[in-house]
Amino acid sequence: MMVTENIFSKRTAVEQVEEGIELAPKFNSYGLIPVVVTDINTGELLMHGYMNEQALRKTIVSGQMHYYSRSREVIWHKGSTSGFFQNVKELHIDDDQDAIWAKVEVLGGASCHVGYRTCFYRKIDYTDGNIGLIFTDKEKVFDPRVVYGDETNPTKL
Amino acid sequence: MMVTENIFSKRTAVEQVEEGIELAPKFNSYGLIPVVVTDINTGELLMHGYMNEQALRKTIVSGQMHYYSRSREVIWHKGSTSGFFQNVKELHIDDDQDAIWAKVEVLGGASCHVGYRTCFYRKIDYTDGNIGLIFTDKEKVFDPRVVYGDETNPTKL
Repeated sequence: MMVTENIFSKRTAVEQVEEGIELAPKFNSYGLIPVVVTDINTGELLMHGYMNEQALRKTIVSGQMHYYSRSREVIWHKGSTSGFFQNVKELHIDDDQDAIWAKVEVLGGASCHVGYRTCFYRKIDYTDGNIGLIFTDKEKVFDPRVVYGDETNPTKL
Repeated sequence: MMVTENIFSKRTAVEQVEEGIELAPKFNSYGLIPVVVTDINTGELLMHGYMNEQALRKTIVSGQMHYYSRSREVIWHKGSTSGFFQNVKELHIDDDQDAIWAKVEVLGGASCHVGYRTCFYRKIDYTDGNIGLIFTDKEKVFDPRVVYGDETNPTKL
């Protein structure tokens, strides 16, 4: 199927955006929209990423998650290196259409480049004025050195 | 309890950020970090918002969600107008510490300024090349005109 360029509507009124049935996403000044990704089966939050217009179009039309990598500055077909593709089961959009929620099925069971099942493997602990992180997920699903080899780590300081 | 200014660690190394137990959040060039908010009881995705450093600090120390409103350009104590406060039950952070996940209990049962329980009340429908939105949540929990009165709608075009 051809990916047409104009599957998104123009944003013309608050009521159209909030209460309408036209897809009129808002991309920020970098041309990006944030995406919340949960597992369709467990409901678990897997990751938080970004899409540009093209990545969102590709995701909708292909049925597999495509992101925009801010560190690598490219469209990124999730799974193309690791094999852990994310099949789109449902896509939702929020009230003002500036955030996407994707419910996905993960092929391979991991979504985090560090090796964990989810990117959110640490909890913020604040007790008696002391702050730190506690690991809630201790088992890596894969070894990132094996899966990604010499690829540059996308984490930036 | 006093909100100290320096509860966040400096980001010094990828390993510290990804595998460490120090909270070293990354704020973007606008000074913001995105926040995914789910209901602690149902697991439902309620909203996607942003915090600046001060909002994150206030959230951690007070135990109630504070956001940064990009449209109103102020720290926003969720519920201060509507009464629908969000009590923090758990805060998680992702691998590169540039996204927060908050599990909350909502007092009053609504998180969306349009009146729905969740901000994500519409699903993207793509069938035979046609695209549109389908309402998955049809019942408003409250009437925003009653709750917010003449306040400016935060949705921007």
